[in-house]
Amino acid sequence: MIEAAVIGGSGYTGLELLRLLAGHPEVEITAVTSRQMIGQKVTDVFPALGGRLGGLDRLVFEDPDPVHLAEKAEFFFTAVPHRTAMEIVPLLLNDRAKVVDLSADFRFRRPEVYQEWYEPHLAPELLAEAVYGLPELYREEIKKARLVGNPGCYPTSVILAAAPLLRLGLIEADVIIADAKSGVSGAGRGLNLTSQFCEIDDGLMAYKVTGHRHTPEMEQELSLAAGRTVKVSFTPHLVPLSRGILSTVYAPLKDGLEAKALVELFHDFYRDELFIRIKKPGELPHTLDVRGTNFCDLGVFPDKRTGQIKVVSVIDNLTRGASGQAVCNMNLMLGWAEETGLTGLGLRP
Amino acid sequence: MIEAAVIGGSGYTGLELLRLLAGHPEVEITAVTSRQMIGQKVTDVFPALGGRLGGLDRLVFEDPDPVHLAEKAEFFFTAVPHRTAMEIVPLLLNDRAKVVDLSADFRFRRPEVYQEWYEPHLAPELLAEAVYGLPELYREEIKKARLVGNPGCYPTSVILAAAPLLRLGLIEADVIIADAKSGVSGAGRGLNLTSQFCEIDDGLMAYKVTGHRHTPEMEQELSLAAGRTVKVSFTPHLVPLSRGILSTVYAPLKDGLEAKALVELFHDFYRDELFIRIKKPGELPHTLDVRGTNFCDLGVFPDKRTGQIKVVSVIDNLTRGASGQAVCNMNLMLGWAEETGLTGLGLRP
Amino acid sequence: MIEAAVIGGSGYTGLELLRLLAGHPEVEITAVTSRQMIGQKVTDVFPALGGRLGGLDRLVFEDPDPVHLAEKAEFFFTAVPHRTAMEIVPLLLNDRAKVVDLSADFRFRRPEVYQEWYEPHLAPELLAEAVYGLPELYREEIKKARLVGNPGCYPTSVILAAAPLLRLGLIEADVIIADAKSGVSGAGRGLNLTSQFCEIDDGLMAYKVTGHRHTPEMEQELSLAAGRTVKVSFTPHLVPLSRGILSTVYAPLKDGLEAKALVELFHDFYRDELFIRIKKPGELPHTLDVRGTNFCDLGVFPDKRTGQIKVVSVIDNLTRGASGQAVCNMNLMLGWAEETGLTGLGLRP
Amino acid sequence: MIEAAVIGGSGYTGLELLRLLAGHPEVEITAVTSRQMIGQKVTDVFPALGGRLGGLDRLVFEDPDPVHLAEKAEFFFTAVPHRTAMEIVPLLLNDRAKVVDLSADFRFRRPEVYQEWYEPHLAPELLAEAVYGLPELYREEIKKARLVGNPGCYPTSVILAAAPLLRLGLIEADVIIADAKSGVSGAGRGLNLTSQFCEIDDGLMAYKVTGHRHTPEMEQELSLAAGRTVKVSFTPHLVPLSRGILSTVYAPLKDGLEAKALVELFHDFYRDELFIRIKKPGELPHTLDVRGTNFCDLGVFPDKRTGQIKVVSVIDNLTRGASGQAVCNMNLMLGWAEETGLTGLGLRP
Repeated sequence: MIEAAVIGGSGYTGLELLRLLAGHPEVEITAVTSRQMIGQKVTDVFPALGGRLGGLDRLVFEDPDPVHLAEKAEFFFTAVPHRTAMEIVPLLLNDRAKVVDLSADFRFRRPEVYQEWYEPHLAPELLAEAVYGLPELYREEIKKARLVGNPGCYPTSVILAAAPLLRLGLIEADVIIADAKSGVSGAGRGLNLTSQFCEIDDGLMAYKVTGHRHTPEMEQELSLAAGRTVKVSFTPHLVPLSRGILSTVYAPLKDGLEAKALVELFHDFYRDELFIRIKKPGELPHTLDVRGTNFCDLGVFPDKRTGQIKVVSVIDNLTRGASGQAVCNMNLMLGWAEETGLTGLGLRP
Repeated sequence: MIEAAVIGGSGYTGLELLRLLAGHPEVEITAVTSRQMIGQKVTDVFPALGGRLGGLDRLVFEDPDPVHLAEKAEFFFTAVPHRTAMEIVPLLLNDRAKVVDLSADFRFRRPEVYQEWYEPHLAPELLAEAVYGLPELYREEIKKARLVGNPGCYPTSVILAAAPLLRLGLIEADVIIADAKSGVSGAGRGLNLTSQFCEIDDGLMAYKVTGHRHTPEMEQELSLAAGRTVKVSFTPHLVPLSRGILSTVYAPLKDGLEAKALVELFHDFYRDELFIRIKKPGELPHTLDVRGTNFCDLGVFPDKRTGQIKVVSVIDNLTRGASGQAVCNMNLMLGWAEETGLTGLGLRP
Repeated sequence: MIEAAVIGGSGYTGLELLRLLAGHPEVEITAVTSRQMIGQKVTDVFPALGGRLGGLDRLVFEDPDPVHLAEKAEFFFTAVPHRTAMEIVPLLLNDRAKVVDLSADFRFRRPEVYQEWYEPHLAPELLAEAVYGLPELYREEIKKARLVGNPGCYPTSVILAAAPLLRLGLIEADVIIADAKSGVSGAGRGLNLTSQFCEIDDGLMAYKVTGHRHTPEMEQELSLAAGRTVKVSFTPHLVPLSRGILSTVYAPLKDGLEAKALVELFHDFYRDELFIRIKKPGELPHTLDVRGTNFCDLGVFPDKRTGQIKVVSVIDNLTRGASGQAVCNMNLMLGWAEETGLTGLGLRP
Repeated sequence: MIEAAVIGGSGYTGLELLRLLAGHPEVEITAVTSRQMIGQKVTDVFPALGGRLGGLDRLVFEDPDPVHLAEKAEFFFTAVPHRTAMEIVPLLLNDRAKVVDLSADFRFRRPEVYQEWYEPHLAPELLAEAVYGLPELYREEIKKARLVGNPGCYPTSVILAAAPLLRLGLIEADVIIADAKSGVSGAGRGLNLTSQFCEIDDGLMAYKVTGHRHTPEMEQELSLAAGRTVKVSFTPHLVPLSRGILSTVYAPLKDGLEAKALVELFHDFYRDELFIRIKKPGELPHTLDVRGTNFCDLGVFPDKRTGQIKVVSVIDNLTRGASGQAVCNMNLMLGWAEETGLTGLGLRP
């Protein structure tokens, strides 16, 4: 058993981490922090976690004091806003500690990119060390890392859809269209008008139509996959559901590729992956099939008529798009089977 | 007062037509047909329409016998499946009759296109006469028509978004991406597993990822707008809401165009249109703002970074995407103000 | 045309009032106030109301200065929180002014009851003058009133269901059970965690299980209807929808009453009412049938086996439960047909 | 490892059983039947269950031939409609077999009651042997049973709420009010208009307001708990969510009981129960807290003012209300810890 702490445990990402870790056979949660909820019982704030089965009734939200925390755990999940993460992670990373950071702070290869889209980086040396935590692309690096930058929800769905196209040289475009639709939990548990039920229910909107901060993360990884600069024309949409992202990726396809062959290429690309499921031709990915899981289901749809390929990708934004992937990264970093604690199937309906 | 009949009145399109016509000051509904519900009171099937205020309690679903119907009304809405429409419309179109057909049967300029995507056309001479019922593009033709092919819901949302780009020569691409998200009422009132609540609620899927039959309708109109052949890479998605379509249209933008100027160009293009509302820069179209109305709200988002333009379009698929547009077309065909009976504002929340 | 002002126009009740008044043929809106949004265009805050059709684009939220307002209108809707209403209404009520107050401040006959459930009343003399604005029970009094206390949403649904039972002496119980389920718009447009989408979506909860402030309003009216003290064991529930209340009222039924006769008695009781629809035996009220309307649909279900009667009542909490009823009251107070501006049918689906 | 079969595996109850059994450490699923889907892969019909992690990819729906099945498994879940269950269960129950039946066929003590609400019983001798599968009330009997009648979803929620009141003699009424609100999955996966998304979304209705077939089940168990005949005035409602039942139980409370004491009495009554969580005073049960789990959360609300007690009960109708409880019963029948395979926490949001 390893002692783990969740820094910033009062949001939806924290809640999902606690749910997953409560069922993880190798982990004991020894601390959960929240500035807003210091002193409150975790299971009073989140009654879903309560009861003897969960084993979390003893946990109390505490102040995120890094010195104190460093003694209480050897593995840390930082589920705090960006900037806060790069302030706190250096203080946690002592000799034995390992960290998965769920903010944006350790996802970028180049501090200039972070600065352009966010602000000046406070820990560029750690940024250089951090590994981008997408197991399908960086499994071996993650195993050796002590700091992993856990990917964003949208980037996870888009990169897993588009990376095979670029790695395998199936498309030559410099701009990829990524039209993504997300459930509302991606906006977090903080109060804002846009997330109020009556502003969402039975409705549909696009938001941050240009300039969403997940864009440079996709562009970094897809450019690396392509071996050239690739831009992403990314549009996020808010749909009336709690969990789930569906991303539809469009690009002009190279000539002469057969539909069936393309699906096969995706199968090959992800052949040994436990958490990727490629749909057979004609089958449609559905976010409900991945709800509460670490799966990414992919549908590959070449369209001869227009010369385009479309790849449809579905994930649960809280699990695969955040906390489930974080647990998977922890499993790799600690030498456990990567599916440990992540074997539940999708809750459908 | 004109006497109007609704042929095929037991689906959601029929229900919406009846709702709108009940509030129309110039129309008396004299017949409503439904093969499945012959003899049932309309307001028993649709209690929302009941009561003395609606004035529909006397209506009974009857058999769609064209000869009999031709005597009962002079204006006809055919809200029946494709093929059935082209069988029945020729029988209705006597000397005085006018028809708005809500099926796909009279939307195409060339019978070959209809044949390619549907089946051989049974009334090609009427097809040649029919006018495509998008008032913003064909107002004068509609005024003179006796047969209007009412546009599909997806095409309405996509064409209104993309036509200005092509008419004004702002884009040069031969393929336009149209990523559309629709509420479930677009699938109709018939029973099918995909429309069951538990298959939709809190989930998200793409469907008919290639080859949706609304594609040729968009391509016909956008090619006409462009003066060259334009293809549409169209992907429909099903989202958990009842009414509403949001379409996000992507295309590479010609160089040198300013963001603000683009929004202005859209304003100019639709300057006199009552049912088009262009969003100011930064504002976001929301399907709830158009719910139950004939509005199409458009947001124009040029993206210098990627060289793309995105246009976001929202409509109510049952109103602007079907029955509201049909009533608007009737108003034009009968010489009334086009907003007659369509002045209600969006039901929000 | 009469000049009307909406005091407190930035919540959902205000939005619904503006939607209805925009379509009212006899009303011109001359002022809309909101402390939080002074200087903002009404149609920027509520784009659903925008465009030339609505005619509201010129309106700007202004400060609720009563002196100034008294000059700008002769009819006032106060859609402000309780306490604020009893502060402002006395300042508005000059010689010619009439007011419908949508808060709780003018609903009670006795200031002691208000004090017990809220706080000491600041305008007891106006309270004595005010009429409880439920047209089915107090139509003639409303016509003569200059101040109407518009009923609460839950009380409207429960009183309309239970009043016939008590007035007609069909039940003798001293306690009536009222189990009510409401959409989230009843909680208003203010930010709170309980109204965030992810706390509501796909879930269900009871709240304020004892002591909800709408209880004394029901008890006042049902005791008056019964001619004796009647208590209501009231439980509100929050359900994942935006608009709609369904209340299920339970009471032991007097012996010897026939099911069919009971439905008939309800029909008779509400015989001339335009906005009440009694379901035939076997038919089920559905909130979607009344969405956006001033209807209350009632189902009457005697149960011989248990000796109980159940009455199921559905309304739209924003329309019949607030703004629609307010407009209806205005119509009565100004001598117009009570359905003026309220003839739209339910938006279904 | 025990070999288990799911008879009737293509509905939502079957799907939930398969999800739970896939994660059960002691069970191997050796057969799944469905008359409609013979020959189809289980994971093609239910892609949520697919992939190597689930281990179900080899399963194919087969014909429910009892003789053949009796050889393939020693434990059976029958998730078929009533009547079918009592036809098939006698054929399965050989020497070694044990059965949990999820239909209504083995829930009643007296065949006359079954006959009155359903039809004549075909296996009255098995009915006499069967144990009502509510572990909190019949744990020891279940452990010894070879046939368990798994309780209905509504009865589970209502009985767990009301049994303490009656067993402890806290109420003396002969009629209890049970107002229940259910998600749509309770209606099953079969096609019907009432379950179509657009008939449910954003709406609310009561149904089977008198005479729902779950009534006699509640009355049987609550009469046993009380030691006298108790009737239940039961009203089910359909709410727009997939999973979850909230039942609000009302009864007049005996005089002189303190609120805090009542909550304590519930705590004591369910002291050793893993799957019951009693809310502290002021806390509110929420269906999202139990989603996907076997928990029943209870809130106890005495109301001095009206002399009534209200108990609010929430369960997941597919898990605690069907398949989770069935697995729990299997665990007891086979001598395993009753929480085996049921330790997942609620998926929230």
